[in-house]
Amino acid sequence: MDIGKESLQKHAEWKGKIETKCRVPVGSREDLMLAYTPGVATPCLEISKDVNKSFELTRRWNTVPVITDGTAILGLGDIGPEAGMPVMEGKCALFKAYGDVDAYPLCIKSKDTEDIIKTIKLLSGSFGGINLEDISAPRCFEIETRLKQELDIPVFHDDQHGTAIVIAAALLNALKLAKKDIGKIRVVVNGAGAAGIAIAKFLLSFGVKDLISCDRFGILCEGDPQLNPAQAELAKLTNRTHMKGLLKDAMKGADVFIGVSVGKCVTKEMVASMAERSILFPCANPIPEITPEEAKEAGAYIVGTGSSQYPNQINNVLVFPGLFRGALDVRASTVNDEMMKAASRGIAGCVSPEELSVDYILPYAYDRKAHETVAREVAKTARETGVAKL
Amino acid sequence: MDIGKESLQKHAEWKGKIETKCRVPVGSREDLMLAYTPGVATPCLEISKDVNKSFELTRRWNTVPVITDGTAILGLGDIGPEAGMPVMEGKCALFKAYGDVDAYPLCIKSKDTEDIIKTIKLLSGSFGGINLEDISAPRCFEIETRLKQELDIPVFHDDQHGTAIVIAAALLNALKLAKKDIGKIRVVVNGAGAAGIAIAKFLLSFGVKDLISCDRFGILCEGDPQLNPAQAELAKLTNRTHMKGLLKDAMKGADVFIGVSVGKCVTKEMVASMAERSILFPCANPIPEITPEEAKEAGAYIVGTGSSQYPNQINNVLVFPGLFRGALDVRASTVNDEMMKAASRGIAGCVSPEELSVDYILPYAYDRKAHETVAREVAKTARETGVAKL
Repeated sequence: MDIGKESLQKHAEWKGKIETKCRVPVGSREDLMLAYTPGVATPCLEISKDVNKSFELTRRWNTVPVITDGTAILGLGDIGPEAGMPVMEGKCALFKAYGDVDAYPLCIKSKDTEDIIKTIKLLSGSFGGINLEDISAPRCFEIETRLKQELDIPVFHDDQHGTAIVIAAALLNALKLAKKDIGKIRVVVNGAGAAGIAIAKFLLSFGVKDLISCDRFGILCEGDPQLNPAQAELAKLTNRTHMKGLLKDAMKGADVFIGVSVGKCVTKEMVASMAERSILFPCANPIPEITPEEAKEAGAYIVGTGSSQYPNQINNVLVFPGLFRGALDVRASTVNDEMMKAASRGIAGCVSPEELSVDYILPYAYDRKAHETVAREVAKTARETGVAKL
Repeated sequence: MDIGKESLQKHAEWKGKIETKCRVPVGSREDLMLAYTPGVATPCLEISKDVNKSFELTRRWNTVPVITDGTAILGLGDIGPEAGMPVMEGKCALFKAYGDVDAYPLCIKSKDTEDIIKTIKLLSGSFGGINLEDISAPRCFEIETRLKQELDIPVFHDDQHGTAIVIAAALLNALKLAKKDIGKIRVVVNGAGAAGIAIAKFLLSFGVKDLISCDRFGILCEGDPQLNPAQAELAKLTNRTHMKGLLKDAMKGADVFIGVSVGKCVTKEMVASMAERSILFPCANPIPEITPEEAKEAGAYIVGTGSSQYPNQINNVLVFPGLFRGALDVRASTVNDEMMKAASRGIAGCVSPEELSVDYILPYAYDRKAHETVAREVAKTARETGVAKL
């Protein structure tokens, strides 16, 4: 049976991948008096006097919504808010299993940026952090930026930053094997949507100096009138030689190719034109930009994809449970760049020098030690950068 | 130790009365392929083709938010959205324990009627029903009415209807003992806010003909300019003799007193002025309108209060878990009057003729049989009245 059919059958059996669990006794008159009325009035009044107590007297300290508008679900695009819920529930299940975070799946029946921002702001008192999910570009940039400015709890758009963090972790380890310096490599990022733009910016902050972003129309070049505002901003930071042309032009002599675009857009010739010991992360889902077999045949040194069918799966499941675990543990007011870098380094560090090989550059998504490492490193860095309240 | 202090200590230990539970295996590569990517794409696409499938392929069929704006929390009033969360969590724990309903506590940081309606509408695709909680009158009327009109899932404001249902159940059984006919009694309802108005209307629909509502200023009389719109509407349905005066005037000769007002507003003299075999439900919390001891001394036949310290606790915990269980089980599109009446009759019927006494007119809040009965009767009535989709 194919995986899609089997998954559908399982979903019909499961009837939901998460549920609510009651943590307190409510079986007697005395129980009800403590957990509900009349006793509950006292914790209510305590929070009324000091809203910070909501992190101590309710589940808020551990609670995160996984929230979407259904416009960019997996590789499926705008399939509607309710249709995104199996993904949201899946993430909630993973949040719990790997981060012990209590996540709720929520969908918003509007594509309007202001509606989405306002809805999340109005609900923010219920949560310890906000995980934005599968919201299409360019709206996701505005939504995340505004919410980060206006809320004092962590706001994280996983499609942007979760992807960037795990790609960076993979790159750090791949560069060790390729014996290349991050400050001297040329990186090509294909796809200039939410993930592609976040990856490019994050790699620059990690010390990459020579980076070229491409989209359907070719290389992003400063001043090109067809760029959207987010791409125009990125074009000012990348491609400092003002190269013009197509993806194949960008790839000539490049050390690294990162694809978050569409399947089958990279040929063997393009791989062969890259620098020696080339690193390729063709992450388009479900069909990668080029298959690992083809890339290797064309001379690629290390290949990682989004799929678990091949070695080196690059999956942001490695990021979000631990990242929120760490942020919630120290009651961080935000997720900053240093915390995200700490997550990347933490993931990379989970592969020991002895284990590291061209077919094993990242821990597995279900490696609990990796999630614990991310949580610890994120919490530590939140404290060091002064955004932790605990 | 007093109950408030003990409850506060317990809440600090619990750090949340509910949590999320993962229902599916996610410990291996194969697990992730089914519960998450790539398999999850198939259920997503199924829902995209037919949104009704969201009730089959996600937890939506069993999921209800307990949602407040924090303006009418218990008897505490407007203490703020976050401060209402211990109550919301408590209800979620009870929803799970007694109805196996997966409820999420949510608070909205706005008191604006349109904001609240819009927020809930935008989130409605995530849920199988909506439980409104502790929203102050008169905004709660507009919010519930509009949401009932605009959504095709059950919307239920527990403070109004949960209270009305359990009061009616208590009254049905008390009248059996007092040997009085519901069509011939005079009922006084003191308090014309959310609960009081809902109780009055619900008792009328149950066959009460002579009903007088009072508020701080005295008897509600049609045409009185000081009434708010909800009270003015109620005044047209009640007090058909156009009596004017104070609560004490209304209580003279009355068979039943129902209080959802403030503590200590009923005197022994007022009770003594009532008809023989009088029934009093002074439900103000935490201090009743009159204590059961005083009421009994003044000649009351049956007394029930909101408190578990006395016999006959009248607690809407008896209602909401079973009511939503029943509505969700048959995927009801609404909660109609007949379903609510069935809940009242179901609760009343859980006390057998042999058990029924002046000190035992209602099952205990933690009586699982009562919750199961409510669920069964509500589901049956939803089917009979044509609002069930299953």
